[in-house]
Amino acid sequence: MTLSKLPEIMIEPCVRAALLEDLGRAGDITSDAIIDPAATATVALAAREPGVIAGLDFSRIAFRLIDPAITLRIHLDDGTKVAPGDVIAHITGPARGILTAERVALNFLGHFSGIATATAAIAASIAHTKAKITCTRKTTPGLRFAEKYAVRAGGGANHRFGLDDAILIKDNHIAIAGGIAPAISRARERIGHLVKIEVEVDTLEQLEEALAHQPDAILLDNMTPATLREAVRLIAGRAITEASGRITAQTAPEIAETGIDLLSAGWLTHSARVLDIGLDFVGVS
Amino acid sequence: MTLSKLPEIMIEPCVRAALLEDLGRAGDITSDAIIDPAATATVALAAREPGVIAGLDFSRIAFRLIDPAITLRIHLDDGTKVAPGDVIAHITGPARGILTAERVALNFLGHFSGIATATAAIAASIAHTKAKITCTRKTTPGLRFAEKYAVRAGGGANHRFGLDDAILIKDNHIAIAGGIAPAISRARERIGHLVKIEVEVDTLEQLEEALAHQPDAILLDNMTPATLREAVRLIAGRAITEASGRITAQTAPEIAETGIDLLSAGWLTHSARVLDIGLDFVGVS
Amino acid sequence: MTLSKLPEIMIEPCVRAALLEDLGRAGDITSDAIIDPAATATVALAAREPGVIAGLDFSRIAFRLIDPAITLRIHLDDGTKVAPGDVIAHITGPARGILTAERVALNFLGHFSGIATATAAIAASIAHTKAKITCTRKTTPGLRFAEKYAVRAGGGANHRFGLDDAILIKDNHIAIAGGIAPAISRARERIGHLVKIEVEVDTLEQLEEALAHQPDAILLDNMTPATLREAVRLIAGRAITEASGRITAQTAPEIAETGIDLLSAGWLTHSARVLDIGLDFVGVS
Amino acid sequence: MTLSKLPEIMIEPCVRAALLEDLGRAGDITSDAIIDPAATATVALAAREPGVIAGLDFSRIAFRLIDPAITLRIHLDDGTKVAPGDVIAHITGPARGILTAERVALNFLGHFSGIATATAAIAASIAHTKAKITCTRKTTPGLRFAEKYAVRAGGGANHRFGLDDAILIKDNHIAIAGGIAPAISRARERIGHLVKIEVEVDTLEQLEEALAHQPDAILLDNMTPATLREAVRLIAGRAITEASGRITAQTAPEIAETGIDLLSAGWLTHSARVLDIGLDFVGVS
Amino acid sequence: MTLSKLPEIMIEPCVRAALLEDLGRAGDITSDAIIDPAATATVALAAREPGVIAGLDFSRIAFRLIDPAITLRIHLDDGTKVAPGDVIAHITGPARGILTAERVALNFLGHFSGIATATAAIAASIAHTKAKITCTRKTTPGLRFAEKYAVRAGGGANHRFGLDDAILIKDNHIAIAGGIAPAISRARERIGHLVKIEVEVDTLEQLEEALAHQPDAILLDNMTPATLREAVRLIAGRAITEASGRITAQTAPEIAETGIDLLSAGWLTHSARVLDIGLDFVGVS
Amino acid sequence: MTLSKLPEIMIEPCVRAALLEDLGRAGDITSDAIIDPAATATVALAAREPGVIAGLDFSRIAFRLIDPAITLRIHLDDGTKVAPGDVIAHITGPARGILTAERVALNFLGHFSGIATATAAIAASIAHTKAKITCTRKTTPGLRFAEKYAVRAGGGANHRFGLDDAILIKDNHIAIAGGIAPAISRARERIGHLVKIEVEVDTLEQLEEALAHQPDAILLDNMTPATLREAVRLIAGRAITEASGRITAQTAPEIAETGIDLLSAGWLTHSARVLDIGLDFVGVS
Repeated sequence: MTLSKLPEIMIEPCVRAALLEDLGRAGDITSDAIIDPAATATVALAAREPGVIAGLDFSRIAFRLIDPAITLRIHLDDGTKVAPGDVIAHITGPARGILTAERVALNFLGHFSGIATATAAIAASIAHTKAKITCTRKTTPGLRFAEKYAVRAGGGANHRFGLDDAILIKDNHIAIAGGIAPAISRARERIGHLVKIEVEVDTLEQLEEALAHQPDAILLDNMTPATLREAVRLIAGRAITEASGRITAQTAPEIAETGIDLLSAGWLTHSARVLDIGLDFVGVS
Repeated sequence: MTLSKLPEIMIEPCVRAALLEDLGRAGDITSDAIIDPAATATVALAAREPGVIAGLDFSRIAFRLIDPAITLRIHLDDGTKVAPGDVIAHITGPARGILTAERVALNFLGHFSGIATATAAIAASIAHTKAKITCTRKTTPGLRFAEKYAVRAGGGANHRFGLDDAILIKDNHIAIAGGIAPAISRARERIGHLVKIEVEVDTLEQLEEALAHQPDAILLDNMTPATLREAVRLIAGRAITEASGRITAQTAPEIAETGIDLLSAGWLTHSARVLDIGLDFVGVS
Repeated sequence: MTLSKLPEIMIEPCVRAALLEDLGRAGDITSDAIIDPAATATVALAAREPGVIAGLDFSRIAFRLIDPAITLRIHLDDGTKVAPGDVIAHITGPARGILTAERVALNFLGHFSGIATATAAIAASIAHTKAKITCTRKTTPGLRFAEKYAVRAGGGANHRFGLDDAILIKDNHIAIAGGIAPAISRARERIGHLVKIEVEVDTLEQLEEALAHQPDAILLDNMTPATLREAVRLIAGRAITEASGRITAQTAPEIAETGIDLLSAGWLTHSARVLDIGLDFVGVS
Repeated sequence: MTLSKLPEIMIEPCVRAALLEDLGRAGDITSDAIIDPAATATVALAAREPGVIAGLDFSRIAFRLIDPAITLRIHLDDGTKVAPGDVIAHITGPARGILTAERVALNFLGHFSGIATATAAIAASIAHTKAKITCTRKTTPGLRFAEKYAVRAGGGANHRFGLDDAILIKDNHIAIAGGIAPAISRARERIGHLVKIEVEVDTLEQLEEALAHQPDAILLDNMTPATLREAVRLIAGRAITEASGRITAQTAPEIAETGIDLLSAGWLTHSARVLDIGLDFVGVS
Repeated sequence: MTLSKLPEIMIEPCVRAALLEDLGRAGDITSDAIIDPAATATVALAAREPGVIAGLDFSRIAFRLIDPAITLRIHLDDGTKVAPGDVIAHITGPARGILTAERVALNFLGHFSGIATATAAIAASIAHTKAKITCTRKTTPGLRFAEKYAVRAGGGANHRFGLDDAILIKDNHIAIAGGIAPAISRARERIGHLVKIEVEVDTLEQLEEALAHQPDAILLDNMTPATLREAVRLIAGRAITEASGRITAQTAPEIAETGIDLLSAGWLTHSARVLDIGLDFVGVS
Repeated sequence: MTLSKLPEIMIEPCVRAALLEDLGRAGDITSDAIIDPAATATVALAAREPGVIAGLDFSRIAFRLIDPAITLRIHLDDGTKVAPGDVIAHITGPARGILTAERVALNFLGHFSGIATATAAIAASIAHTKAKITCTRKTTPGLRFAEKYAVRAGGGANHRFGLDDAILIKDNHIAIAGGIAPAISRARERIGHLVKIEVEVDTLEQLEEALAHQPDAILLDNMTPATLREAVRLIAGRAITEASGRITAQTAPEIAETGIDLLSAGWLTHSARVLDIGLDFVGVS
């Protein structure tokens, strides 16, 4: 399965804003003062720890927006596993521009690679099952489209991209709507024909109530593996099954082995540690 | 020391963009389908784990932008320590709007509170020294101003906000500029009178070279406590001292006890785990 | 079934841009020159022809953005049928502001009401069947979210909001992908669990090929009622059925009576005639 | 008379926004899943009905923004008459990008060509007179500059572009200002030396009152051909004359033959049916 | 003649951008550090030199955007003459916010008042003639609409607001078009009926050529008073007359006395000295 | 000392906005009507008076954004002294585009060159001393980063770029904070380690109070040369010294000879006269 790249038109405004945030009103006063404008250099973008990379286009565009004379030779692309010391790309061009764009390029790459790495770890831990790992809407404001891409780069699946692309009926909806049954039926009569309905349930009793109204998917929240297994048995293929709550590379295998379709984890996008990637000076060029 | 709030004019565009990202083109189709537009509710914004809160204005504005009829009674403000179960605020108003704004409000609050919590943990661990904990430019693109605020809310100090508000001469600058001496002297002759110069050094030899050119601050990168102690002795108050590299609540005390002025940690802003804060249904109101 | 209003946060930027487009660099030079700034007036927003109104919030916000002292008493809300002469709202306040905002307020209201009216006409013509009328992605650039809302106000259903919220495999996709079978199976293995797949077919042969791969929905393009009836029989409830091509209030009933689930018409959003709504001077107030 | 093209700087933001509206947060999930990223194709942009084309630059830029590797060979440019089957351009390049940009490219082209076609029909119907057809400010919010261009592409003339580029005194202005005389004289004393004044009149009595104050142009609203002829006689070249109300290709000739200078029709920009233009697969290339 | 205020919707984005430019990423670190958040103050906005004020709405909105609790009592409005020491407004509210908004509020007010003052000086010097003073398109990028307003506040008239609201044929146009005659006739056949044509001429020979083609206005560039007088005589009311080149309060009377209609001066908007207006501390309140 | 250029990413949005402001909704109707689209021309960008140029990149980008086929051969770059008649650049390409971009290109170039020229005049007048001339935050809203650059191009130094990059304690801060001592000490305990503190004093008494709290810099406001000399003596190198108030090329030498480090003048950015630079037609090319 190949990873589809994001169109540049979606990436560029994001990179542009980050560069302007960093340049402020005076620009890179350190490089401007110290570095000869004619100096050129080659640097290596290198992994400092094992992981999976994601977001190279963000870095590439950061360098280009600062100086189109900077070129990248990309050796390892998004979705690739890296080991410490692996050179992801060589970057050559005006030294000033390279130094000016460095931090923004790394901030994006480290952040998205961190997400891909965390996703890949869980994906690997459940590779012996049919289950997939998926993310949530617990994303960093402004970066959702890209964080979801990073999850895909790590081998994960995507959940909803927003409030508007699927129905997800959660505990508070049920409480206010007066129950699972009215919630699902009201949803069904109002939505478009390409919209699916998922319902969150906390107990097997809620599950039975939900099943009676034929949702497309059921989110089994914070259940033990034993309960999950029983839930999967009860559902019997009538809905896609998703388990959430405390999913880590340690807990994932046991959960996946219950026969569940999906494991979802908010922390992939909101709390994954960045992947340590650095820029090493190779030489003047 | 009171924490100064960010002006709303800086916060609002950020919250507005996050809400539009989540609403997409069809809005909150779940709440729209299920929740009676006349229903009102009260929910409690409550901590699920211990930490320090930051970013309440982002949450408050998220609810207001979705529906000005939603009101918040804030019980615990930014910078406050919370224990699991502590109610930070009660939110009352149209149920639909509360549910629509919930995720964005929590995404901001959890993210900034996570940073404040991580900062506060280190700050507490070095409270017996004169040292302060500070952040870096390794921030989430688009959120730097707010993540820096979260660091302040956690009791930390702020480093540079961008490439333009201070000179920071790092290893790659030195390599390309041809040494510490030319780097500092070129910087000094070009910068404004309110701009300070900091130099990164990796060894005591580099430190001595740097000291000869009187930088305002010296970043001692990845040194052992013993070397740091020696560096502080050599500097002897002639420059502000900053230690970086592997700063955690565990390692911080020993580093701080070397007499260093500042400990800096990029992970505070790029890898702090979000603080788990949730919205609990209290009742229809 | 109540119509859910769009959140103001989605509407306001759109209205703001339209007002600035009309004000240009010099503002409303006619009203500024002619109308006493102290003059106040009451005008009636009245239908000049029968139809269904949609977009009143756009008009209301246009008046408010020009002058918050202008107030609207809304008598008939979005989704309501109107007859010629029906007064939709009375608008009272500074005369200058009312005249300045008039054209933008009417441009939005007429456009969206035109869409709602066209939709309602078809909806009425097929009310004796289970079929619903739906729109497409053939919308006016920049106004999709609002035109989709207008379709809902007219009693229609919404199709995809963009390229990203469902899979729709069309003739060109099939030609390039090398057939319906590979297209559907590649789609299924890559998409999220809340994403549905619809396939466009032009013939009953294609339909059989598609059915073998279990799409969620099938778009039957440009078929005669007889062929549609046969297609519906073949599908036998295994997929949602949608008919497209030359749908008008005249042709719709016969198509709907084939047992189809949905009729889709691009012209609802790209070619519906505006509804004639005007602003009548009532008096100085 | 050659048609002047709009500068790209005016077009591009509009196309960019439309593409982002369609891509949403996940991009073109259909093409990404189904189409081999290495596949290339040639498609033909072809008219499906007779008309006049306008807006090719919008389509061209849409393809370029999605993928600069896509090239267009344009055979027929804006302002050209087309017959069903006429190939307007051939488009060659990566198949994914062509499919992704298709809908937006067609939405612009169909909309503007629809306006040009409607304008051209009326222009042709009055070609034996000196009269010209012109549009109004009843345009689609956000697209006024482009819809006015489409009118020019169809051989029409442009009226005001906004509230700020000419004085147009309408019925409500007259009612609130207290008459035609004070309205015109106040306007004249306040406006710049390059601003013209037009007044709307409904009757020959109003016309005489207006003529006494020497407006540059007079809008004769909803008058019969006989009354228009009398009005033109009374004006006797002292002002430009414009007729509005129910202008169609059927009614236009009789109105134009009254000797009027301009016929104006709001529906050209707000209610013209799109011109049916499609993208036909030619082959892999 | 009353001065019409600019709609807030035109002003606010401009003020918002200026505040964000000044706040940067850390906000007002001086006031935040020093001023008690509970402190309130009253300050007086006072003229320090004689002039005419313009732009008070920009200042008022600056304070409001920083803190809505700040209130202004405006004593002297736009267009008013002030003497040194005159208090234009009293400003009361949270001291922090007042100090934070101060510089932006004064930058706008000083700049626009400087333009109004320069305009008023020339207007006064030619008040004994029928001539008016007008500005040009030589404005500060981004502020044209507001600088044109400032000219009106000073009693001046406005020339074109952009390239699109009138035809102005200048020397380079004539050189490239191949003469005045073809230039005017091509313009006339292409433009809308509400667009005027002005031609720039440098000599009386050019003037005669221009007059033969009946432009609406003639710009007499850099002519001596004697030549201007002759030009006015030749034109004999057949076109509006405008004199440009070296217009100051000293030279204006002699030029105005030639019978010219308009004097235009680019320096009013690009080089007028700001009017010195300051904020004086009145007391804590 | 070489002048560092601003990154294009900072310049382009500014130029783009200015072009769109000038193009309005109809574009350059004069050139469109008169100039043959195939006509090409060469023009010379020439100084009409002596000065120092700044902002050529803004002009270059203006031409490129209007038509990439326009090329510039730049003979004299930013920071260069020019005499009347000096040709700064030759511009060749489509005549229409050159005429369309002309005014915006000149507005930027004239404005920034005016600032550079004014700065250079003062810099020259104090070249025999160690003092430098610096600007303030009294800048044109939206153009601060560029006006600061123009000051550098003229040989001046930059003061604060905003409220957030240094502490500057002014008279109103002192009044509200209750004195110089509490103001400085509160500032010191709250700010980051790379932030400097400057205090404004009006008298020698205030100076002594300030010195006791060791600010990094002292702004001596509106003092006579004699008092300044005494202040410099008192400070004795313990802080950077800045003199403000009535700084002109005439007064600067006497002030600079007091031994002061910096002279600051707000008028450099808010009231410098534009440098007269024009576009001369060279020929069709």
